[in-house]
Amino acid sequence: MAYELHYWPTIQGRGEFVRLALEAAGAPYIDVARGDEDSGQGTPAMLRFLQDETLTHPPFAPPFLKDGHQVVGQTAAILHYLAPTLKLVARSDYARVWTHQIQLTIADMVTEAHDTHHPIAIGLYYEDQTAEALRRAKEFCGARMPKYMQWFESIVVRNPAGPRHLVGGKLSYADVSLFQLVEGLRYAFPKAAAKVLAKTPGVVNLHDRVAALPKVAAYLRSERRIPFNEQGIFRRYPELDIR
Amino acid sequence: MAYELHYWPTIQGRGEFVRLALEAAGAPYIDVARGDEDSGQGTPAMLRFLQDETLTHPPFAPPFLKDGHQVVGQTAAILHYLAPTLKLVARSDYARVWTHQIQLTIADMVTEAHDTHHPIAIGLYYEDQTAEALRRAKEFCGARMPKYMQWFESIVVRNPAGPRHLVGGKLSYADVSLFQLVEGLRYAFPKAAAKVLAKTPGVVNLHDRVAALPKVAAYLRSERRIPFNEQGIFRRYPELDIR
Repeated sequence: MAYELHYWPTIQGRGEFVRLALEAAGAPYIDVARGDEDSGQGTPAMLRFLQDETLTHPPFAPPFLKDGHQVVGQTAAILHYLAPTLKLVARSDYARVWTHQIQLTIADMVTEAHDTHHPIAIGLYYEDQTAEALRRAKEFCGARMPKYMQWFESIVVRNPAGPRHLVGGKLSYADVSLFQLVEGLRYAFPKAAAKVLAKTPGVVNLHDRVAALPKVAAYLRSERRIPFNEQGIFRRYPELDIR
Repeated sequence: MAYELHYWPTIQGRGEFVRLALEAAGAPYIDVARGDEDSGQGTPAMLRFLQDETLTHPPFAPPFLKDGHQVVGQTAAILHYLAPTLKLVARSDYARVWTHQIQLTIADMVTEAHDTHHPIAIGLYYEDQTAEALRRAKEFCGARMPKYMQWFESIVVRNPAGPRHLVGGKLSYADVSLFQLVEGLRYAFPKAAAKVLAKTPGVVNLHDRVAALPKVAAYLRSERRIPFNEQGIFRRYPELDIR
């Protein structure tokens, strides 16, 4: 049975990390909120599920995944759950917990990237918090992005199995997520990301290898890949791209 | 062999979620950075480890746990890793992933609580971002805190095994973490938390049951429990307690 991915239909957002893992593995899935309302899909189907008061395990927010009767929310938990079946994580418990740690650190950086344009309130527009956004983006571009990316670089180059992957000698969902993180940073902060990535060649090489994987490359060319835009997590506001 | 917990020695912070789980389980552990420098412990020992360039799995930041040769960073990953051994999670994979989802949602709320006093930059003092903090705290107290706590209330009251625990009929690390979250909110935002918690009696009852567990109660009375203070995540700045 195909997985059901539930996420906002017009943005990559956090759902994209799950989409990319499913695509990289060639797993069948239904992107429910992007489906046809007449056939019981679309955003109303997702919201109906979120608001269903009979659910004992309601997700807090999208993305969430339905795998038969199992419902899993929280991006990192979804990937941790899916990865053994998708063969996107090594088998040992040690490798699984390390891969998960990397994913959680990616998630932390994604939250900080988001907060550059929404430092005050997600309930307000960017235009209502531009002064604060400018201050936060300065910190993000100048301090946080280098700190995170240098950590990713260090774990790539220290991988005992070689710098082709983050964990061991095989592709994991952490590799795929790091690809997406680099994509997002380059979209939102083209100048600042170029400056930081110039010092992390291992990360850039890994990004390029993931992009070239046949299933990933086919997905990126397809209409299933939603273009970056200014409703998502990574937004291009030139004034926030502080080199 | 005792676990080694590495975390900043003068604050509860994120390390407290791990400390509480270890204490609730009665597990032996060394709180390394709080130990004696003369015996190779203290903050220098923690920093030495963080900066060790020979580590293949370096933690990004404290807290991290050493269990023999295994090193695990990221609070939620540490708890996920420890829980089966500490018997703080049910055995089924389904229960494990649900417990983890709850923990990740607690972690998200902890980050938002932190950002009320540091909405711009963790590299700056609170005093350098008070105007922004006031705006962010208004959103946190008025919108985010109720949203999160109502979700926790809904999952407590919908637990098929009854509202004494978050998952199934036994104590899990998620219960212990929810206790700590309520403690932190009450410390930092006494008025706003009182208003929100008045509508979440299931959460309050669960908090009180965790506080009364003999091992937890003994820990809270001990000197091992660092008092809340204005260097940690939950800080009492009365101007940010917006009812």
